[in-house]
Amino acid sequence: MQIQHIEDLHDPVLAQSLQHKIDRKTKPLGALGRLETLALQLGLILGSETPQLREPQLLVCAGDHGLAARGVSAYPSDVTWQMVENFLAGGAAVSVLARQHGLALTVVDCGVRHDFAPRPGLAIRKIGPGTADSAEGPAMTAAQCEQAIANGRELVAGLPGNAVLLGEMGIGNTSAASLLLAALTGTPIADCVGAGTGLDEAGIARKRAVLEQVLARHAGAREPLQALAAFGGFEIATLVGAVLQAARERRVIVVDGFISSAAVLVAKKLQPHVTQRCVFSHRSDEFGHQLMLRHLGPDAATPARALLDLGLRLGEGSGAALAWPLLQSACAILAEMASFESAGVSDKA
Amino acid sequence: MQIQHIEDLHDPVLAQSLQHKIDRKTKPLGALGRLETLALQLGLILGSETPQLREPQLLVCAGDHGLAARGVSAYPSDVTWQMVENFLAGGAAVSVLARQHGLALTVVDCGVRHDFAPRPGLAIRKIGPGTADSAEGPAMTAAQCEQAIANGRELVAGLPGNAVLLGEMGIGNTSAASLLLAALTGTPIADCVGAGTGLDEAGIARKRAVLEQVLARHAGAREPLQALAAFGGFEIATLVGAVLQAARERRVIVVDGFISSAAVLVAKKLQPHVTQRCVFSHRSDEFGHQLMLRHLGPDAATPARALLDLGLRLGEGSGAALAWPLLQSACAILAEMASFESAGVSDKA
Repeated sequence: MQIQHIEDLHDPVLAQSLQHKIDRKTKPLGALGRLETLALQLGLILGSETPQLREPQLLVCAGDHGLAARGVSAYPSDVTWQMVENFLAGGAAVSVLARQHGLALTVVDCGVRHDFAPRPGLAIRKIGPGTADSAEGPAMTAAQCEQAIANGRELVAGLPGNAVLLGEMGIGNTSAASLLLAALTGTPIADCVGAGTGLDEAGIARKRAVLEQVLARHAGAREPLQALAAFGGFEIATLVGAVLQAARERRVIVVDGFISSAAVLVAKKLQPHVTQRCVFSHRSDEFGHQLMLRHLGPDAATPARALLDLGLRLGEGSGAALAWPLLQSACAILAEMASFESAGVSDKA
Repeated sequence: MQIQHIEDLHDPVLAQSLQHKIDRKTKPLGALGRLETLALQLGLILGSETPQLREPQLLVCAGDHGLAARGVSAYPSDVTWQMVENFLAGGAAVSVLARQHGLALTVVDCGVRHDFAPRPGLAIRKIGPGTADSAEGPAMTAAQCEQAIANGRELVAGLPGNAVLLGEMGIGNTSAASLLLAALTGTPIADCVGAGTGLDEAGIARKRAVLEQVLARHAGAREPLQALAAFGGFEIATLVGAVLQAARERRVIVVDGFISSAAVLVAKKLQPHVTQRCVFSHRSDEFGHQLMLRHLGPDAATPARALLDLGLRLGEGSGAALAWPLLQSACAILAEMASFESAGVSDKA
């Protein structure tokens, strides 16, 4: 599979002029903290001293997982399609938050075990009725994996605007994300496993045992696309394509929690500069997410820093949607705040 | 001075029905984390299972400090009035953020060392041209302190809506906040002192030495109103009145950073239940704020939890404004999200 090159955003001239602009705003140096580094990043991604976010697109990719039959989730697989219906009917958390913030919501059937009636807001890019059971063999074939990535690319290419927020739904997909984290970073799988949608201690122990077996079964799958095919899922592969396309187009990518970060991890292993375009919206309460963020920072020594830390563990894109106003604030600060000079305010003595 | 009683919001029936409603929403139990506890709190404050935030008011109280002449700030006192002009002209961070979120902004001259021309959005409640130097005597008289508190009460009583966001401006006011923290909680003053608007190490050492002297000079002032009069400032005292009035009217109070938290600390010492109405918007980068939040929680063992942790140290109400959409989200979740029953989603196996 041909992966297009994602270029380094390195632009010291623009970075310096953005930093100067931020520093001359009427506030002590650095007093807006993380909002200032966010403003700098958005300026670099969008190539402007006054970046403007246009027509933000929230892409919620859904898929089912063969592994779910092994009791790795607190909920039955049917919840995947039921939640897709809930997204489309406007009653899910992400539906409510997207409405609040004016985010266009596209729900993608990447491989849900259910046939949906076509309707506005639903994109059907179904690879199959859920992945195969990764305890028995690869979750998907290499061809399916490529197709899902191509779907993600094509979806983003067809969307307006310059910002994409990532979301997902799929009973069993914290298992796939944990397996990808372990396989691609060498983190011990036991450390990568959490409660997901709410397993109790016994459930977590069972999930851990299953995932240890699955990881061992695919001991040869340590390259990003191999691992993605081995562990799934279709929604994660589609998100990988979405990330690659959005990065190539220099869109702002707002990453949600553990699952969408797993898609970014795969994409980063393919093209290291994708994370320059990524804003990590929140640190999930799912334990593996903290470990994953360590691998998504600008360099090996620096973990990615998330904007919010609200104990969320829902997925769907809910954290990305909650963080969205902070991105808007960062742009508004750049565009609208006065400088010491323009406001006639005395600088530091 | 007569302080009106603030009643306990204790309402187990409403709390239980709110919690049940949150738990039946289409998400795993607790998966929306801090947003769920926020929804519960807002429901209890506003006395409703579907609380609605109406006409939020951002009150920015400004005042000057006699102590500033002793070099406790990186900026000259003139910056206070210049920033008030900047707030009113729409160029300050808080102006930009208030516009973004539709917050009505009222700037209050509580005692700035400058005469402002009257204009819309500016309330003149000037006690004097800055406080007296607390290194030489009390920052204000008991009568001035009472008047400032009365002003805060009267201002809030005259505002529409059911939510008040607190902001402030005053060169030298991290010193007053540090002194209040030390005097009212017994925290060693050295631990309460930070960089404020950006002092270097030598500046912080000088500030610490000055504040140790000031604290020692007013060793008898350990009751809340005595301490407030001893250390100032007029803007903090006005905010104390605003907090007491807003709490009494069961408005939602969105607290900004170190200085506005100091006003809440004074108010809590007068009426312990005020903090039930307080949402702490962010944890400031000003070190003393972390210590202060320990004294503002629901009980002695539980610190207050802030929503955001973005390394902000600006004041003005900027953190309160940044957190505002999270309060709106919490209300939207309660009002608009489907339940497992209404959406036909299967519950946990």
